[in-house]
Order: sequence, then structure tokens, then C-alpha cells
Amino acid sequence: MHISEITHPNQLHGLSIRQLENIARQIREKHLETVATSGGHLGPGLGVVELTIALYQTLDLDRDKVIWDVGHQAYPHKMLTGRYHRFNTLRQKNGIAGYLKRCESKFDHFGAGHASTSISAGLGMALARDAKGENFKVVSIIGDGALTGGMALEAINHAGHLPDTNLMVVLNDNEMSISPNVGAISRYLNKVRLSDPIQFFSDNLEEQFKHLPFFGDSLSPEMHRFKEGMKRLAVSKVGAVIEELGFTYFGPIDGHNLEELMETFKHAHKVKGPVLVHVATTKGKGYEIAEQDKVGYHAQNPFNLATGKALPSSKPKPPKYSKVFAHTLTKLAENNSKIIGITAAMATGTGLNKLQEKLPQQYIDVGIAEQHAVTLAAGLACEGMIPVAAIYSTFLQRAYDQIIHDICIQKLPVFFCLDRAGIVGADGPTHQGLYDIAYLRCIPNMVIMAPKDEAELQQMVVTGINYQDGPIAMRYPRGNGIGVPLMEEGWEELPIGKAEILRHGDDILLLGYGSMVQTASQAAEILSEHGIQATVINARFVKPLDTDLIFPLAKSIGKVVTLEEGCLMGGFGSAVAEALLDNDILVSLKRFGIPDSLVDHAKPDESKADLGLTSPQIAEEILKTFFSKQLSPVNS
Amino acid sequence: MHISEITHPNQLHGLSIRQLENIARQIREKHLETVATSGGHLGPGLGVVELTIALYQTLDLDRDKVIWDVGHQAYPHKMLTGRYHRFNTLRQKNGIAGYLKRCESKFDHFGAGHASTSISAGLGMALARDAKGENFKVVSIIGDGALTGGMALEAINHAGHLPDTNLMVVLNDNEMSISPNVGAISRYLNKVRLSDPIQFFSDNLEEQFKHLPFFGDSLSPEMHRFKEGMKRLAVSKVGAVIEELGFTYFGPIDGHNLEELMETFKHAHKVKGPVLVHVATTKGKGYEIAEQDKVGYHAQNPFNLATGKALPSSKPKPPKYSKVFAHTLTKLAENNSKIIGITAAMATGTGLNKLQEKLPQQYIDVGIAEQHAVTLAAGLACEGMIPVAAIYSTFLQRAYDQIIHDICIQKLPVFFCLDRAGIVGADGPTHQGLYDIAYLRCIPNMVIMAPKDEAELQQMVVTGINYQDGPIAMRYPRGNGIGVPLMEEGWEELPIGKAEILRHGDDILLLGYGSMVQTASQAAEILSEHGIQATVINARFVKPLDTDLIFPLAKSIGKVVTLEEGCLMGGFGSAVAEALLDNDILVSLKRFGIPDSLVDHAKPDESKADLGLTSPQIAEEILKTFFSKQLSPVNS
Repeated sequence: MHISEITHPNQLHGLSIRQLENIARQIREKHLETVATSGGHLGPGLGVVELTIALYQTLDLDRDKVIWDVGHQAYPHKMLTGRYHRFNTLRQKNGIAGYLKRCESKFDHFGAGHASTSISAGLGMALARDAKGENFKVVSIIGDGALTGGMALEAINHAGHLPDTNLMVVLNDNEMSISPNVGAISRYLNKVRLSDPIQFFSDNLEEQFKHLPFFGDSLSPEMHRFKEGMKRLAVSKVGAVIEELGFTYFGPIDGHNLEELMETFKHAHKVKGPVLVHVATTKGKGYEIAEQDKVGYHAQNPFNLATGKALPSSKPKPPKYSKVFAHTLTKLAENNSKIIGITAAMATGTGLNKLQEKLPQQYIDVGIAEQHAVTLAAGLACEGMIPVAAIYSTFLQRAYDQIIHDICIQKLPVFFCLDRAGIVGADGPTHQGLYDIAYLRCIPNMVIMAPKDEAELQQMVVTGINYQDGPIAMRYPRGNGIGVPLMEEGWEELPIGKAEILRHGDDILLLGYGSMVQTASQAAEILSEHGIQATVINARFVKPLDTDLIFPLAKSIGKVVTLEEGCLMGGFGSAVAEALLDNDILVSLKRFGIPDSLVDHAKPDESKADLGLTSPQIAEEILKTFFSKQLSPVNS
Repeated sequence: MHISEITHPNQLHGLSIRQLENIARQIREKHLETVATSGGHLGPGLGVVELTIALYQTLDLDRDKVIWDVGHQAYPHKMLTGRYHRFNTLRQKNGIAGYLKRCESKFDHFGAGHASTSISAGLGMALARDAKGENFKVVSIIGDGALTGGMALEAINHAGHLPDTNLMVVLNDNEMSISPNVGAISRYLNKVRLSDPIQFFSDNLEEQFKHLPFFGDSLSPEMHRFKEGMKRLAVSKVGAVIEELGFTYFGPIDGHNLEELMETFKHAHKVKGPVLVHVATTKGKGYEIAEQDKVGYHAQNPFNLATGKALPSSKPKPPKYSKVFAHTLTKLAENNSKIIGITAAMATGTGLNKLQEKLPQQYIDVGIAEQHAVTLAAGLACEGMIPVAAIYSTFLQRAYDQIIHDICIQKLPVFFCLDRAGIVGADGPTHQGLYDIAYLRCIPNMVIMAPKDEAELQQMVVTGINYQDGPIAMRYPRGNGIGVPLMEEGWEELPIGKAEILRHGDDILLLGYGSMVQTASQAAEILSEHGIQATVINARFVKPLDTDLIFPLAKSIGKVVTLEEGCLMGGFGSAVAEALLDNDILVSLKRFGIPDSLVDHAKPDESKADLGLTSPQIAEEILKTFFSKQLSPVNS
């Protein structure tokens, strides 16, 4: 049977090991070919090909539920659940999503994108099953990296307390999150991973033990306790911690041995209560270049399969915002030992690996643990350090209470650097960085800024480092800068809460924030061609908002437009609306940004065009709204 | 020495056990007397009197740092750090705060209010210390309840990975959060608690073991492994899990034995790396009534010390919102087995203990684990159940990403019931429920509502249960309803997104939300006495906002006022401002709500008066702003 014939995962049932190995090979081929062509996650999926096949051999996916954590390791799952033929559309507009999506397939039982959610969701399904008196299996698959996230541990604590609730957790242990794992749990798992699997060993040992003459009747109480603990000891090396937490432990199992996997899953399905199957996998399995460089090949842009090298870009691009951020921070940190960069398992994504290389003592990776990262930063700030928490906009949502409770209420000087703020492209709805302006703006004591380009980002890094009156946040986009020259020296901080005027005009006032400042300038150019002269302001700060600059211009011009790459509800434009009305400045306001709906995966430019956020679209909308004109065809 | 002479905790140094026991007795007396008079947290503080004294005996609080988790067990700490004489002002306006506050004392090294933060903050301080090359002790105290919170586990994972970073964690194990604990960790700790302390036992055992003739040279590999694991076994019963996570474990220790505590702390201070001291305490220790009813005496309103009974209220009050909520939910759940109430360790606070009593199979307490609670609800919703997550506004901040990522993106029908929304009174800034409107409003697919009174709350519970198109949230205040009759039957759902007109008038439009609707009506009465006729609207929904009703009235009346008990930035008034300007309705808008600053502890009415949110203040402000009039003295 060829993988292309599989439209339902139950078709795997009854296939021979040889046939399944063939399927595994075909999945790897398609996986590699697709990611090499279009980009996507490489290592995670290649590591779980056998795990997926073996697990699905033991399930009936018309009834049973499988919850994949994060979802970037679910490409094999997608190919086995009717999406093989469309797999070449991966992460492209209207194509197959890079993560799991309930609306994409009835076999995606729970959506994912962020880490550490699968056990909670699975337990919810298991409890619902039991409440309804139904009888199906629930399997949550979680990586060892995601296991360090607090919510996964909360879920284990709860599930381990429910001995009558059947739930299987498959621990996909590849010794990595995106970067090598951090923390005691990971170290423990590695230790376990190196042990022989001895889950059936304890009985055997007890047998041997019983025949030792010394363990008779006249034992000291201590020795007696010792004897009683014996069976526990036998399990100790392979999962005592997990067993103490109420789970029956199986493992470690070779995650690339189909027979061993299938046998263990079958055995584990029979156990009552929560069960954890510990599967040791190799990230990037089957593609040697990825096996050797697990960090580099976690996810990939299009590359040459033979060499593993990225395909050369058609033309040189400006540096990425992340890179400029990391470069600037590292330079400042070289001259200021108080600066500590903090990442939550995103060393390469945020660029902080650069800081790690140069100044390892000023770098902290806490693992997938955003809550802890933020309150750790609070502790550092209490003792006079300058913590810089570099966390994607979407992941900082995980630390919302810590931002409010531990940072803002105490007015501690922590510098939040929100990478991937705005539209993120191929990663889709779970990763869009659209809410940070709204969710941070409402918290007292927070200063919030966004640079118009990569050079201003440099100035804002200086500003954030120097600002010691309380918390300060900077958001910046995914991807490349706009191509302005970087400053190699003479970096100066910006005055807090001060905007700048980029262009003068009497007909309309354009207030741009962050990545949309350039769009505002371009729209102003187009408007100018139609005889409309715009004043363009780079707001820089959404909080405090530069009302000293904005109010007189709003009053004199009478027509105001805001532009932001974030949600309209509660965002930058909302702040402007509040300020205008609070001061009884009754002028027309048009707000451009992300409307109150999800933004699907696509290229960022495609999404922006769909949302009417390109400069020609904005200029046209302004002409229509404020000047009852339409853009002449030559410009549209 | 009498406690009143202690202005600095170092004065404890060198006191005899007898003297310290005297101090302990005096602390208990003052603690009991104060809480009996003014209300406050009772059980937690009484349980840690000896722990606090013994720990401070071994620290130099001019240098060393102590981080108390949650902070409601820090009353003894407060009395020992110069606040004994003012302790009778506890939780009153301008008095001593009920939690820890950096601005209140230099000995409050880290503020607290929410659970599970202390290890992260302590680790941050410890890392800063080492980076600065300084040398002081850092001690984080955490309860066993708070230990189930994900961020505490994230912090343990990180700290356990840093063998060179000295950090002491004191586990205050009283077998309770506010309610009895939930989960496998708690069960494990209880098991450990019942064991004898044998941390010095392993050497002894090894000695005995060595002399057994059978453990010679010719062991099977299995027996060899067994022998190697021996030392681990000896620790196993008392803290193997903690030791596996990289901590040196001490305990369990009798938390009311000063000598044992002091000796253990001294010993533990000498150990390198992360150390956990497991202290078994009794919540409410020394006040028998509280020891017997640990849930009831976690926190107390004023009560009679001799009987433990609450002082009778001067006049009968309307039922609390929480009670009406729980009563209504339980009634609905009796007729609909799909309804599942979920709490995160707040069974009594939310009133869900009522559901637990009547329908235990439709009740889930996940422990202090808001993230897990929300994604568990998502899993339940996937399988057709009707999950009702009853979580305080301030604690739901902990599950922000789960609301976005697991609920709203997937549009799952989960009903969020946000208790304690608005000003919470004596608990102060850490517990104010001021941000929920702003932080929920910006998320797509969310419906948000708030009842004007306890009867409308009943209707909204019906509405939330019946709404199956996606997530829906209801916020309601702490404390008592306004005294309207409850409906015992005939409950009907409200139409989604529809407001109601309560009063007609042509001069001004008052839009009230939730608890401020009554204030709006009262302000309208006062205005009416001044010849100003107001239309009053009960908005009911902030999302979707009933613009069909609001817009024509706003246009015809021309003056609009919004009233909410939430932050002005991004809140209900902000939504109205956005809607008006988006539709080019240029009318004057005045927004009443919480400005962009923290609200300190005080009685709710005191806070509202300070913020200008009483109905006479609002009426006066409206007269001044819109009608250039002042309230005549008779009404002020």
C-alpha cells in the first residue's frame, strides 16, 4: 500500500511491519520534499513518524481522540489523515496549516500551536467521556520540551489524582525543545532515557530478593522499611517521579522501532488510570543533516535536500529585526554587566543565542516557562539588574498575570522585547502577535513603544535599557527590516512618550505606529499625487501617548487616521479615540488595523492585502472616506 | 522581651527558646485579636508563627532576602518587622496591607497576593546576587497549595538545574490551599508528611548494607544496579521526587517545634545549591476552632473570639453575587447533566462548594492551576459538555493565553464566570478585578456581559449556559447584590448583544455597565432634581455592543456618558468611543471608570469615593462638564 492510498488512519490496521516501514519511508520522503520546497518544521515531524504510525495502529480514530501538543510534529499525522495529496500546499495561503486545526480535519481533535496544552485538553475529553458513560481512548502527545511548561505540570498533577480516569500521555522525548532543553525535569528524563527499560523488572528483582537469607524475620525497622521500598526502587530509575505523581510508567521505548512501540502502546491501553509512555525519539530522524543539527533544522526555509543548505535568496535582504535587536543588546551588554537577556526556549528565534555566545553569564534560558521568566526578571530587577525579557508577542500572553502582578504593580524596571508582534505569516492564528498593544495598554505603570524601522529599534533598545522608572515594552515585527542604515555608534535614547513628525501637510493627519509608519508615509506619497497633503506622525509610544503633539494637529487638520499592525479593539487607534474624546476633540477618525477576527496563515503581504492594509489600499480608503474621491486606475 | 519592643527582626537573634515561645504566643494573641476585630486571613498566619520566628533567627534581614508566597501568611512577618503597633489597622484604608508590599516595608522584599510566585522571584534575586558577586541568603516560602501552580513548578525545574546557585525553598505544608488540596503532588506530600524524617538515615543504612555478605562481588547486573540505587531509596520516602529535581531535601519537620526548625534551617543554610526544607504546619495553629475548620477560618470577617462565630451584621443584607451565581448554576445543573462547574481552588469563594455538595459529579476543582482549568474546559467543550469556569477576574489573568489560544481561536463554548470583577476592597491592588473587560474585549469570538443586579445575573447564567456558538464571559462584583427580588423560576436567557433602556430623557445619555448601572440610575435621579433628564441604558453586553440601540440615541441626545467598574484604558467606555468614532458620530463623551493607576486597599465604597465614582460625584461631574452647573449643596 502506498501512503497516497491512505485517506483514513484506520487503513493502517492490519498492515505488516514491512508495509508500515514502507509507509514510514514514504512519509519521510514527502515530508522532506515538501519542507525543502516550501519551508516548515522539519525535525519534529521526522522524529515521530514511527510513533504516529504505531500509535494509530492501536487506535480507532473514528472514536478515539489524539491530542498533539504544539502541533509542529503533526505532519505525519496530517499525511495519514487524508491530507497527503494537498500536503504540498503546507503553510501556504488556503493550504494545509502548519499546526493542528479542528476546522481542517475531523482527525485534528484539538488545535495547537503553543506548547504544553495537550494533557489539559486530553483530560477534559477523558472526563467528558466518563461523564457521558462513553468508552473511547484519549491520547495526549507531549514533547519533553513542552513538559517544562507550567500548565503541563498542572495537568499532570490533576490527572495523577484521578486513578479511575483513563488517559494516555505519550512523552515524545527528543531531548530538545527548539533549543536543547533546560531544567531539572529534562536532566531527569535524560537520565531515565539512558537506563534500560525495566518496567517488568521489579517482579523479577523481588523474586531474587526473596531468596536472600538475610531478608528474613529479624530485620531492623530500617531494613524492613528498606525491603518494603524495594519494588519502588526497581521502578525508580525509570520513572519513579512519574509513578509518584500517580501515573503508570512505560519506557523508555525506542521511538523508531515499530514493533516495540506497537507492543507497548497495546499493553499501556489496558492499564486503568493515567499512563505515561516514554518514547525516545531522534529529532530529524532519517535525514542525517537534520539529525546532526537539531536546532538548525527544527524549522526551515526552502533548502537543497542534498546539501541541507538554504536556497539562496533572489536578492539581498535587510537584516531581520531579531538580529538587529540581538546585535544591539549584545553590544550594550558588553559595556554593562547588569544587563541580563532572558529567553523562554527561543534562543535562536529571538536572536539571543548571539548574547549567549558572547556573554553567557548575562544570558538565561528558562525553558518553555514564560510565567517563570517574567517573575524571575522581577527578582533580578529587585536586585538592581537590568532584565531584558525577549519573548514573542503571542507567547507573552502566557505571562500576563506575572506582568500585571509581579512587574507593573511593583513598578519594577523590566524591559519586555516582544518579537513577532503583528502579522506573523505562515504560522497562522495561534502565533499572530495581534493583541499585545491592547493587553499591555490597560495595565498601570507600563510604557509601550514600537520602532518604525530597524535603526529606531536600536534607539529603543537603548531607551528600554536606560529607563529605570518601571516596566517598558517594545514590540517589533517578524522578518526583515525595511532597509535603513543601522547605527554602529552614537546610539541615543528617545524621550519617553514623544512622537516625531515625519511629514507636514494640512489635509489629513496620519498617525502610524511601529511597522505601519512606513505604510503611512507611502500612503501619504500616494495621497500627495492626488493633491492631498498629509501630516505623518511616527507615534513611537502608544503609552504614554504624545497628546501634546497630536492634539493641536488633530484640531487644526480635523481629519485623523491611525495605522497599526494589531487588533483594533483596544489597540493604538483605540488609545487615540479615547484621548480625543476625553478631551472633547470631536474630529473624524479612521482606524486601520486588524479587525475583530482571526488572521489565517498566508504570507504577511497576502494577509495585509486581504485586510486592506497595504499603502495603496489605505490611500484609496482615505480618499473615499474623507475626500469622496477614488484612486485613479494608474495607482491602484 | 515583649513583641512590642521588636522593631527589627534581627532583635530575635540570641533570644532563648523560652523567650521565642513567648514572642510566638504574643504574635498569636495579636493576630487573633486583630482579625477577630477587623477581619482578615486567620489560618495561614497562625500556622507559620514558629516557622517565621525560627527562620528569622537564622537570617540577617539587613542582608538576606525572604520572599513570601501569596502573602496572606505574612502577618507574623509583619509584626516582627516593625508593624506591630500599627497592626490593628490591618486591611483598612491607609492601614497595613493584607499582603506583602515593597513600598510598605524594606523587609517586604517582594510583593505578593497571587500564589506560586515566590520561587521565581527568589531565584531571580539569587542569580542577581551571584552576578554581582555578593553573598546573602535568599529564602522563598511557598505553601503546598501554591506548589501546584504551574509557575512554581517551572521555577523548581529551573532552580533544580542550577547546582551552584544557593536558594532555599521552605515548603509550608499545611495540607491545604484555601480548600483541601487537589492533585498528585499534594497526595505525594501527604505521604511524605507521614513518614519519619530520615534524611540522615541513608549513611547509616549504607553502613549496615555494606556488611551484608551477599552484596559482594558476584552480583547480577540487576542486583548491582539495585545496590547503586540504595542510597536513593533511603531518601525516596522523604523527598525522592524533590531530590530527582535537583534539590537537597530536608524534612519533614514539625513546623511548631522551634528548636527543630532552627536546627534544620541552620543545617540547610550550609548546603550548596537549591535546598528544600519541608515544614509540616497546622493551619490555624493555636486557635482550636480554626484548627478544626481550616476552610472556614482561612479568612474571616469580624468574629467573636470565644465562640468563633461571625459578629451579627447590623441589618440583613441581600445575598452575595457569588451565592446567587452558585445557587442558579446548581439549579440549572440539576436539570442538565452536561453542565460542569470548574474552580481553581476557590470552591467556597466562588460558591461552587454548593454545586460540589449537590452534584459532585458535575464539579471539578483543579487546584491552584488556572491555565489547566481553562484548557481542561476546552477539552470538555470539545466533547459536548457545558463547562462553566468560575474564576475571579484577577486570577483569570493567569489563563490569558489559554483563553486566546485554546478557547477563542477554536471558538469553543466555554462559559467564563468572573467573580470579584471590579473593586475588591481590603485585598488591595493585587486582587482588583479591573482589567478583564480590556483584556477579554480584544480577543475575537468572545462575548462579554455583566448583570446590573443579582436577578439579571440569574438570567445571564441561563444565557451563558445556553449560548453554544462560542466562548462567553460574565463579570460580577464581589460582595452583596443590590437587593432586588431573585427569580425562583421562569428564568429566561437574554438576547446576545442587546441592551435595555431603563429611563428616558432628552438631555444626556448614560450608558452603564454591570455594577455601575445602578449608579447611573441614581445619578439620573439626582440630575433630574436639577432639571436634567437622562436616558439610562443598561448595556448588558460590552461585546457585541448594542450599537443599534446606542447610536440613534447618541446622535439625537448628543451627550454621552459611560460608567464602568473597570479600567478606562481599553474598557467599556473605550468600546463606546471606538464605535462612535468608527461611525463618525461626533458627540461629547465622558467616561467614568478606573483611571490608569493602582487602587489601594480600602472599603470598596471608600475607593469609589476616592475615584469620584459615587452617584452624587458622577452627577456633579456631569453637571459641570456638560451643563456648566454645580450640584446645589443640598445634594452633595
